[in-house]
Parts: sequence; C-alpha cells; structure tokens
Amino acid sequence: MTMPKPTLNIGMIGYNFMGKAHSNGWRQAPKFFDLPADVNLHTICGRTKKSVEAARKRLGWQNASTDWKSVVQDPAIDVIDVCTPNDSHCEIVLEAARHGKAILCEKPLALNVAECEKMLAAVKKAKVVHMICQNYRRIPAIALAKKMIERGDLGDRIYHFRARYAQDWIADPNFPLVWRLQAKIAGSGAHGDIDAHIIDLGRYLVGEFKEVCGLMETFIKERPLLDQAAAGLGAKAGKKLGKVTVDDAVSWIGRFKNGALANLEATRFARGRKNHITLEINGSKGSLAFNFEDMNRLQFFDSTDSGDRQGFRDIIVTEDTHPYTGAWWPPGHIIGYEHTFVNTFADFVKAVVSGKSTEPTFQDGLQNEKVLAAVEKSAKSRSWVKI
Amino acid sequence: MTMPKPTLNIGMIGYNFMGKAHSNGWRQAPKFFDLPADVNLHTICGRTKKSVEAARKRLGWQNASTDWKSVVQDPAIDVIDVCTPNDSHCEIVLEAARHGKAILCEKPLALNVAECEKMLAAVKKAKVVHMICQNYRRIPAIALAKKMIERGDLGDRIYHFRARYAQDWIADPNFPLVWRLQAKIAGSGAHGDIDAHIIDLGRYLVGEFKEVCGLMETFIKERPLLDQAAAGLGAKAGKKLGKVTVDDAVSWIGRFKNGALANLEATRFARGRKNHITLEINGSKGSLAFNFEDMNRLQFFDSTDSGDRQGFRDIIVTEDTHPYTGAWWPPGHIIGYEHTFVNTFADFVKAVVSGKSTEPTFQDGLQNEKVLAAVEKSAKSRSWVKI
Amino acid sequence: MTMPKPTLNIGMIGYNFMGKAHSNGWRQAPKFFDLPADVNLHTICGRTKKSVEAARKRLGWQNASTDWKSVVQDPAIDVIDVCTPNDSHCEIVLEAARHGKAILCEKPLALNVAECEKMLAAVKKAKVVHMICQNYRRIPAIALAKKMIERGDLGDRIYHFRARYAQDWIADPNFPLVWRLQAKIAGSGAHGDIDAHIIDLGRYLVGEFKEVCGLMETFIKERPLLDQAAAGLGAKAGKKLGKVTVDDAVSWIGRFKNGALANLEATRFARGRKNHITLEINGSKGSLAFNFEDMNRLQFFDSTDSGDRQGFRDIIVTEDTHPYTGAWWPPGHIIGYEHTFVNTFADFVKAVVSGKSTEPTFQDGLQNEKVLAAVEKSAKSRSWVKI
Amino acid sequence: MTMPKPTLNIGMIGYNFMGKAHSNGWRQAPKFFDLPADVNLHTICGRTKKSVEAARKRLGWQNASTDWKSVVQDPAIDVIDVCTPNDSHCEIVLEAARHGKAILCEKPLALNVAECEKMLAAVKKAKVVHMICQNYRRIPAIALAKKMIERGDLGDRIYHFRARYAQDWIADPNFPLVWRLQAKIAGSGAHGDIDAHIIDLGRYLVGEFKEVCGLMETFIKERPLLDQAAAGLGAKAGKKLGKVTVDDAVSWIGRFKNGALANLEATRFARGRKNHITLEINGSKGSLAFNFEDMNRLQFFDSTDSGDRQGFRDIIVTEDTHPYTGAWWPPGHIIGYEHTFVNTFADFVKAVVSGKSTEPTFQDGLQNEKVLAAVEKSAKSRSWVKI
Repeated sequence: MTMPKPTLNIGMIGYNFMGKAHSNGWRQAPKFFDLPADVNLHTICGRTKKSVEAARKRLGWQNASTDWKSVVQDPAIDVIDVCTPNDSHCEIVLEAARHGKAILCEKPLALNVAECEKMLAAVKKAKVVHMICQNYRRIPAIALAKKMIERGDLGDRIYHFRARYAQDWIADPNFPLVWRLQAKIAGSGAHGDIDAHIIDLGRYLVGEFKEVCGLMETFIKERPLLDQAAAGLGAKAGKKLGKVTVDDAVSWIGRFKNGALANLEATRFARGRKNHITLEINGSKGSLAFNFEDMNRLQFFDSTDSGDRQGFRDIIVTEDTHPYTGAWWPPGHIIGYEHTFVNTFADFVKAVVSGKSTEPTFQDGLQNEKVLAAVEKSAKSRSWVKI
Repeated sequence: MTMPKPTLNIGMIGYNFMGKAHSNGWRQAPKFFDLPADVNLHTICGRTKKSVEAARKRLGWQNASTDWKSVVQDPAIDVIDVCTPNDSHCEIVLEAARHGKAILCEKPLALNVAECEKMLAAVKKAKVVHMICQNYRRIPAIALAKKMIERGDLGDRIYHFRARYAQDWIADPNFPLVWRLQAKIAGSGAHGDIDAHIIDLGRYLVGEFKEVCGLMETFIKERPLLDQAAAGLGAKAGKKLGKVTVDDAVSWIGRFKNGALANLEATRFARGRKNHITLEINGSKGSLAFNFEDMNRLQFFDSTDSGDRQGFRDIIVTEDTHPYTGAWWPPGHIIGYEHTFVNTFADFVKAVVSGKSTEPTFQDGLQNEKVLAAVEKSAKSRSWVKI
Repeated sequence: MTMPKPTLNIGMIGYNFMGKAHSNGWRQAPKFFDLPADVNLHTICGRTKKSVEAARKRLGWQNASTDWKSVVQDPAIDVIDVCTPNDSHCEIVLEAARHGKAILCEKPLALNVAECEKMLAAVKKAKVVHMICQNYRRIPAIALAKKMIERGDLGDRIYHFRARYAQDWIADPNFPLVWRLQAKIAGSGAHGDIDAHIIDLGRYLVGEFKEVCGLMETFIKERPLLDQAAAGLGAKAGKKLGKVTVDDAVSWIGRFKNGALANLEATRFARGRKNHITLEINGSKGSLAFNFEDMNRLQFFDSTDSGDRQGFRDIIVTEDTHPYTGAWWPPGHIIGYEHTFVNTFADFVKAVVSGKSTEPTFQDGLQNEKVLAAVEKSAKSRSWVKI
Repeated sequence: MTMPKPTLNIGMIGYNFMGKAHSNGWRQAPKFFDLPADVNLHTICGRTKKSVEAARKRLGWQNASTDWKSVVQDPAIDVIDVCTPNDSHCEIVLEAARHGKAILCEKPLALNVAECEKMLAAVKKAKVVHMICQNYRRIPAIALAKKMIERGDLGDRIYHFRARYAQDWIADPNFPLVWRLQAKIAGSGAHGDIDAHIIDLGRYLVGEFKEVCGLMETFIKERPLLDQAAAGLGAKAGKKLGKVTVDDAVSWIGRFKNGALANLEATRFARGRKNHITLEINGSKGSLAFNFEDMNRLQFFDSTDSGDRQGFRDIIVTEDTHPYTGAWWPPGHIIGYEHTFVNTFADFVKAVVSGKSTEPTFQDGLQNEKVLAAVEKSAKSRSWVKI
C-alpha cells in the first residue's frame, strides 16, 4: 500500500516583482525536485482587483483575492508566502502564525528589530514552520562554499570576509524619485535592499558579527518627482525636485565573533555593475571567491595543492556532486537567478512536510536585522557599535 | 469586443532528456512571454507505458499515450513536438505533416540528407508551420550577435568563424559502451550530437558553407559493454569489451560562400570542458566571442572605438534592450540553459498562430545535414568536399 | 652645432630587493627611452663590504662604498637614490639635500609625519629635484586611468574608490618572525608596506582624503624566532616564540575631499593572492577596474556607449597610444613589474635635467604618511580621524 | 684557487626589431641569472653605417660593423647571433659554422627545407653549439606546461593540441604593402611569421607531426604601395595598388605521430587580437590552456581532483618552484615579452660554456620548416600531406 502525497495549498500575499519569482518557484519546484508533497498554487492576493486577477492568470494561480486576512484565515491554505512591501510583513506574519500556517517571508523580515522579535516569538509560540526567503543561500555555488567551509577546506580559521553588492540603476541623477528612494516607504536604500543580502551571506558562511563601523551616503540628494520624470522633463530646468531620504551607498568594516574581519559595501552607483555581488573568504588553508554575475562558478584556492600547481580553481558548479544541480541539467548547462528560488522552495516544502524549520529561519531574519540596525546606528553616531 | 486567445494543444513524442527540457519550455513560455495563444500540454507519448505515465505526471502533461500514430492523428492536437531518437524523426514528421500539424522537431532533423529532403517536401506540401529545435540560436547573446552582425557592427565582411564544442563525459576509457557510442543507433558521435550545433550557429551567424575538409577520430576503440560496466566491473580484467563505432572527435576547416574561413572542432575528450561551446567571429570592423559556459555574456571588439580605449567589451546580455531578456529578470540576473528552449518555444507559438514558419525551419535542418554529411564524406575520403 | 648629452652620475644607497629593481631601472631607462641625459651607475653603497662589492658586480655599478656620507658628499655624484630601510631615509635625504643632490627616495618617505616634513622642507630649501618612488603610478594601465579620469571619461564626479592589496606570504603560522614583523624595525606591517601603495594610488587617481576610520589586526600573535625557523624547528614543540608587533591586516573606510567614498584593505593573509592589487573607481559616467596581477589590462565601462553594446572593455594597455608602452614592444607583447621602475626613472631623469620635480614628489610622500598615520590613529582610538 | 669566469664575446648580425630584443637579452641575462660566463656585447653589424652606429649606441654594443663576414671571421668573437631577414640566415650560418662560432639563429631557421638541412649539416660538422631562437619555449608558463606533461600530469596520452595565433595589424585594407606582405622578401605571411611559433610549441609540448591538411587565404589581394600610403593617400581614389603575394591567414588540421589531433590557425585579420596565442592541450588525465596575452598564467585541469572541487586552476607562474621565475621577482610580480629572450639567452650561454647544444637546436629549426612546407604544399594541392 502506498500513501498518496499530501498537497500543500499556497496562499501568496503580494504579486509584483517578487510575486513573479515566487510563483515560478512554486510552479517549478515539484517539476524538478522529488518532493514529499504536491504543491497547489491556491490563492494569490493583492490590493487592486484588476491587477491581481491579471497576475493570477499570468502567474498560474487558481484564485485571486484582495483581502489578505481572509486568505490567511482560510482553512484550505497550508502555507502563507509573504512578498508584500516590508511595512506589512509583521502584521501578516502575526496573523498567519495565529492561524497555524507555515510561513515563508521575503527579506527583510520586517522594518526593525522589535517587529522581528515579535514575529519570531509568534511563530515559535504557534510552532509553525518558518523561513525567510534569503534565496542567495541556495545558489549552488554558495551552498557548495558552505559545505566546503564546514568540512574544513579553508582550514580551521577564517581571516577575512569581503563582500560587495554593486548596481547602477540610479546612477543617473535624472532617474526619478521612486518609492525605493523614500525612507517612509522603503526604510533604507542600498542598505536594506542589497547590503541585507551580503550580511546574510556573511552570517551563513562565516558566523555571527560582533561589532561594526560604517558610513552611509546619499550622493544625489534631490531627484525629479516621479510624474515629472514620467512626463519626460529633464532635471535641469523648470522641474520640481523631491528629496532623496535613503542611502545611495553603505560601506562598513567589522569583526565576526570568531575573529574574522569583515568588509562590506553596497551601492547603486557603480556604473557597469548590474547585480554584481562579489565575495571573497580567506581561511588559514584556502580561499573562496564568488561573483553573482557568474553565479554558476566558484573560485577555490587550496594552499595544500602541490607546489608548482597551485592556483584558484574555477569550479563550474553544475555537477551531480554539487548541491541542487543534480535536479537540473547536465554538467556545463548553467542555471540562473530564478533557480535560487526554486531550490529554496523545494527545501521549504520538505521542511513543511517534516514539520521542522530549515535555515534561514526567522531567527536569521532577526539577526540580519540586528546587523542592519547596528550599521545604521554606527553611521549616524560615527562610532563602533556592538551587535 | 475582445476575442479570447486560442489554445494550442501540444502532443509531444519522446520523453527523455529532451522531453524534460521541452516540457519545461511548453510550461514556461506562456508564463514569461505575452503569447497570442494559450498552450496546453495535451499528450505525452512514449513506448513504455509505466515510464510515460510517470513522465506525464512529473512533467505536467494531461494525457499519456504509447501510440504515437494516434497522437499524431488526434484532431484535438495542434502541434507535434518530436523529441524521440533520431531514427524515428522522419516517419513521425511525415505522418504529422499529413495530418496538418504544426511541427517542432529536435535536431538533427533526421539520419541523412534524403530523409531531410522528404521531410521538408512534406511540410511544404502540407503548408504546415515547421521548425527545427536549434535552441542555441535563441541564447540572448547569440541572438544579439546575429543582430549586431546584421546591422554591420562587425563591418561589411566576415573573415573568420571559429567554433569549438568540447565536452569530457567519455574521456575515461572505462566509460561503458552506451547507445550514443554505437553507429547503428546514434548515427555518429560528437559529430552529429554537438558539431551539429556549431554548424547551425555558423550558418545562422555567418552564412552558408561552400566547402569543407575534415578528420574524424575514435580515440578509445573498445569499451566495456554496458551491463558489465553497470555491474561495476573494471576495464582491466575479465571483462568483455565492445567496439565503439562512432567518432570521439571531429575537426575540420572550410570556407563559407561569402569568403569567410571556417574552423570547427567537436570533441568529447577535453578534460574539464563540460558544455564548452566557444565561438569567435572576426569581421572587417570588429569581432565577437562567446562561451556557452558563460552564456549570458558576449565579447565585442569595435575597431572604431577611439584609440586608447579599445578593448573587448564584456556585454552582460541581460538588459531590456537585448533579445528575449526583457521577458525574464532585471539586469545582471542571469538565465540558464533551459531558457533557450523557452525563448524558442515562445517564437514557435507566435509562428503557429501567424501561420508563418520562423527560422530555423526544416530548410535549415536540411542544410545542416548537408554540411554534416559533407564533413563525414571528407573525413572518409581524406579530401575536400563541396556542399 | 649639437651639444653632447650630459651624464647623470647616480649614487645608490641600499642594495637589497629594491636595489635590484632600482639598478635595473637605471640600466634600462636609457636603453628604451630617449632621455636628455646619459645615466651612469656611479656608486652603490651598503653597510657590509663583501656584500656590497658582490652587489656592485652583479648589478652593474662602477664603484662600491660602505660610507653613505662620502657618497652623498661626493661632488661627482648628481643623483642620490635612497633604497635603504625606512629608518635611515630621513638622515640620508637631509644630507643629500644639503649637498644639492637630486633625490629619488623609496616609499615610504620616512617613519612618521615629522620626519617627512623635515625632508620636504630640506629639498625645498635646497631647491633640488625630489621624487618618491611610488612606481605603481607608472604602470601604463594606471597612467592611462589617470589620463582617462582627467579628460572626463568617468564623468565629472567620482563616487567610489575601492582598493585592496592582498598577499599571502605569512599566512602560515609557522612562518618565522622576520624583521618585517617587528615594529621597532618595520614601523608597521601590511599597513606601511602595502596599504601605502593603494593610499598613494587613491590620492593620485581620485584626490586627497578627508577623513578615515579603520581597524588593524594581528591574526598570529606569536611566531617562531628566526634562527629556530632557520634551523628547521617546527612551531609545535620545543621552539621559542617571539611576539609579532605589527599588523597582519588593515581595513578601513573613508571620504575624499571631493565627496567620493573610500574603502581600502591590505592583508598578508589572503591565501592564493600573491601581489593582488585590485582597484575599482566608479564615476558618474563610467567605471574603471584594475588588477595588478594582470597589470597590462584596464577595464573600462562607458555608460554613454549605445544601449545594447555596453560592457566593461578589457583594454590591453600595450598600444602606442598608451602611456609609456611605445617605448617597449608591439601591441599585445606585455611588460612586467620591473618596467614600472624603468618608466619612473625615465621621467625622473627628465625632471633632473629640466630642474623641475615631477609627481610624486616628497609632498606626496608627506601626504601619504599623513593618511597612514590617520588610519593608525583611528584603529587605535576606535574613532574617525580627519586628515 | 678559483678560476675567473670566461667571457663570451657576442657578434650580432641584424639590428631591427629583433635586434632590440636580442640586445636586451644579452644585457640582462648575466644580471639576473648566475651564468658560467660573462657576456660582452662585442659587435653589432648591419648594412647601413649610420643606422648601425645609432643602434650600437642605443642598444649598448662596443663596436659597429657593416661587414658581416668580417664579424663572423673575427677570432675575438665567440658567438654569432643571427637576426637578419630570413633570406640571409643560411649564408651567415654556414660561414659562422665554418669559423667555429657558437650560433644562435632567429626563427625561421631559413627559407626552405634544403637550406635548413645544409645549415644543420654545417653546425654538426663544425661541432659548434647551435640554437634556434624559439623564445616562446621559455615563457615560464610554457616551460611549466612541458614539465607537467613530462611528469604525467596530463596522463599517458594526449588527445588534442589546439592552437591559434591571432593578430590584427593588417586588418585595415588601407594598410600598405609592406615587405612582410611580399613573398619575394618574406617567404610567406602569417604562416612563416606566426604559425611557425605555434608549430614549434606543438612539437615541443606534444611531439612530431605526422600529417597535415590546410588552407591559406589572402583576404585583401591588393594594397596601397608603400610610398603612397606614407604620403597619406587613401586607398579609394587616385592611388596605385600593388599585389599582396603572401597569406593573410592559414588554418589547418593534422595528426601527431602519437595519435593526438592537431588544429592550428594563424591570422592577421582578427580585430582586437594583438598578440593572441591561445593553446589548449587535452590529455587522458587533465588539460592545459594558455593565452600569451596573459603569459604569466597557465590553466590546468586535473581530473583526479576530488569530485566537487574540480575546475581549471589559474596558476600564476611566478613562484620560485616555477621554471625561470626564481631569477626574477617575488610571487605575483609578473614578467613580460622580453624576458622570454633573456631566459633563452641564459640557457644558451650555459650551453656554449658546456659545449653541448640545448633545445631548440637547428634540428628543431629543420623540423619546423618541414611542417611549414607540408602545410603550404597541402594548401596548394588541396590534399593531405605527410611530414
């Protein structure tokens, strides 16, 4: 006698950019991974009726709703996937926990440490499976890096973690004042949006931060208001400008609890860098380097290789022996950005069925938020801040 | 009044490696491209009942069949997608054309030139939309290369086309005698399997070949029979060997009709090269270079750049201005192997709805086959062969 | 009537690693550059008679001396080249200035700001030509970067300067306590030795620093004393350890006076990085990137390139249109480390003949020292420090 | 009692581009290598009195001569270095052998196989030390490749040797008809000039060629005569054109005696490629790849590395454990084109003192010539040619 697979009914709150990536994740995970449950894209939820219905159709959901509370309370729904703007994460998660749903929440977990703590307490109290969607942890090359560090390929001690997340989409001073450049809505700029990713990778790969010291900068302090920009008016004459209230770039140094040094930078002002995440980790025995724009590769230097044959190895992370890649295509046939979500969601489905949360949990979301807050405090106070 | 979208019902014959990639293509195309028809994964068809049913479930098809003729004759089916082994392409295509189906056929089109000619005649006579699945044409970087060449970025004359397709999966002499190493089943080795891809890219980007001269080589002439290898028996003692009857590598030179020189090589014996397709095209004004293992990038040299600023540009082909990439993710967020199928299938759906075939058609399939045949004849006769 | 070329007689104080590089510079400069004076390797000077005589022979000098004062006072000598350990720079330079010699001094200029100020005052008072040997300024790719920034290729504003100097020669904890790891002799560790180079490049390419905040770290606090290590005794048993009194790594952030952000790091603990100087500069219009281990290349991104053709250009800096390279070999024939000295010395010879100092002068040496001192103070006080 | 070092007096015939590189080689070898003889740049010889005197001064020679016979016959001279145009190599070498001189001769050894055979016979009969200056063998990365192949790092069998030498200096059709484009003077074009280099590297690294089949092409068949071009007259109106009588490009395939396949190409029509020599060698156990424009690096793939850590290693060939590099600078401090001559001349000096020729000898020069001749014959006859 074989038991039929259970089905997980998903309710997704939010449907914009992350909604596209998450819907794809839910659709694809069961097609490529051997999962212990079927996945049903039950309900997509958003504020505007027409848009959410269009999204439902395009992204492949059964139902559309404009009332997130009813979705969260619906007994037919097993999993709540939160990919709304950050200011609503806390409220939705608290309600979802109250109704016993497994919860996957986009990063950052919430707007501040206090909210994160409440959310973590709620999911712990409700004993529901919880995960923060730090999808870059499941880039195969990053997962391989983690595995290599854990088994000692870099030695017993890490000396340096160096990371940079560079983009250039607002480098033009005439780029308009979109919501991501307004603190009220976005919280912070490059810091919360992209620095958050490399902070999480630092914690994942090296360990917890101990203290930080940083600076934040807004290079372009005023920008064309959005409707004007839309109207094609330039920044030079007769236009109205609005104030940019978030950081354009953040740069900081710090120490991990295990003694490693940290150097991180995130910027939206690096011409030519599109989604350029570069990492380097130096250990007592070897080093690793990674660039997201070549995300199927991992560079590895092994100081124990024989004398005249040492060099950074360019590992193409597409072998069956590598994490996640066996589910995809043959060696040398690369995968892309969206697969990081599929890999993540596959692990989350397994976690839900097993009833046991898998990293990164809301605990990680909280820790990431603490680091973000510490760097921000440091930049404002021009001083070192302990985590 | 708006007309509802028509729906294309797909029947796919074959369900192995290419079946996985094609099913994904059919599923994903309508999710990412704005297509003029809905796509319905109607029926998947294969020889073994149990396997095809498992594939149906895993790959997301509505029905499974073990009788390809009934699928091809089914009036509910609009499109026949042929991804069976090469020796059955011709028969299936002829029947599908007879029943007026639009046809997408995996490469190579057939076993020989005669078959290809019959198939081309059949689809022409039936006036059905036809396409050969040379998916690498729709790698965004390759599509961009085509666009650049056509608008003259490389100048008015091409001097060199140089391509290499290198893998290493049979470099171990103990790798067993799989069907791909047997001429009866596979036709040829590296030549038909991977050389075929770079031949098609040469024709796509540069033009028709005029004459060729090549060599083919089988480095390892005998290999362990498959059941022995499966049983874990080594190649050194007490094992039975079988004869390898296809080429391990092919290397050839030639001329295009437009005067460009060609140099192509395909091998399964290049340790460390996984799916390594490298191209370089040198024109009178500039050059292009490409490596499939970094398929989101295209290298471009422009000799008209100002004097001290010349250099190969490393174009990350993920901008909205690039072919196909607008359908996917933001700049710097790369795509992978499977997307080449999705891009292809999106164009094919448009072609079917418009009733007008789009490149590469069966005409291309035939031309590719003529080049393959000419190289093989050249290698056997040790002489130059005109196409 | 043509005047014969004058001859510059060189006296070089010091003859170790830098002596080898400097001697080569003096020998080669007149062979590859069209200089306004002949160069005569007149006298090499060092403490140990036997060694200095051996060096004289090997490195191609006419005379050897063990008395630096007599060399500096010798009326036959036109130029004093100081490449002794740092603690003797000041005394030698003061004496050389007093005797009216043109002076080329190895970096760092001296042990501290006070010494540098005295030295600058002395050469100014004596009105002699002075230069600090920051040879990396005359890497052709760096000189090209300077030229491009000055003519506006990066736009009218620089946002980021990011630099790292990474080595790994002391990463092994059993590497012995050489003099470079002792503060009394070396002053500082990675900071003064290699951070000094990227500080100078930052000042050269971007401008003066305004404020800094940094950390310094000594990862391995005790090491085998040198004689033991020499005797082949391991670090694990029966050996005597001595205290490391300099930094192994330094990492800091800062601001330039023009508003650009700075992020610098220097370490001797990056396994696999040999002499790995990486720079990236992001301006309002474009970006530059450089890696010393590929010193004949410069990466340049131009945001004004047409839409689908943007990408970092890989400029091979070996064209006649590039700085210094016309003196060397044809395009694509690269040069190496030693050439940075030859290029520097060629410019110095021209400066001496013209009587006009060229950058970098002792003023640069003083400014570099101020930045070094500020970072060190910042690390000790755990606070921001203004320059 | 210690014997003083002997001194080798060099006579160099020819003083143009190669004269510059050779003079530097003679000057630098004793400064960086511990040689068993001193080297004296005794006499430089050329046709035009004024030019050779200028060269003497600039390049550092004691005497200048316009009579090569008197130099070759001069009893004071120990070594004759031949770097004249190719059509005079044979005569000079025969005379030098007759007078018992050690001989270093630029590549190609001579104009044809018959000349090479005469020259080889002459040096053998005279029992003088002889070497052909194939300087690329002593690129440290190439010497390391040789060492690795010999000790079995690539396995016991080589499958592929693939090489390309690409330049672009005549890609402009208005580039004038210089002597290198005239068969009477230059013999051949890309073939003898640059294909010769990769032929020699193939023989050095893999073994002797067995058979070849190639094509040669002249893309631009007429070019402005030189004086017109010099006068700034364009190619389009009112100018006189002359016929190009050498190949612009050569492309060929072949087999080595050990069963490896060969694929070589040399062209002067690859826009953006300056001195772009790329090699790849695939063996049963591993692969090597090299690019001259990054000549301090060697890529190595080892299939015996553990499963998830395989990848091409990027070896920076600047360690003390690497060939020749110990004589130069510390790890990560690269060397350049000219050093290949210095390394070569250092070995030649040792050979002269020991009285025993070292590779590559005139025997290699003869073998290289045989391959060149076979490819040319093959291109003309459109057929395979055995060596």
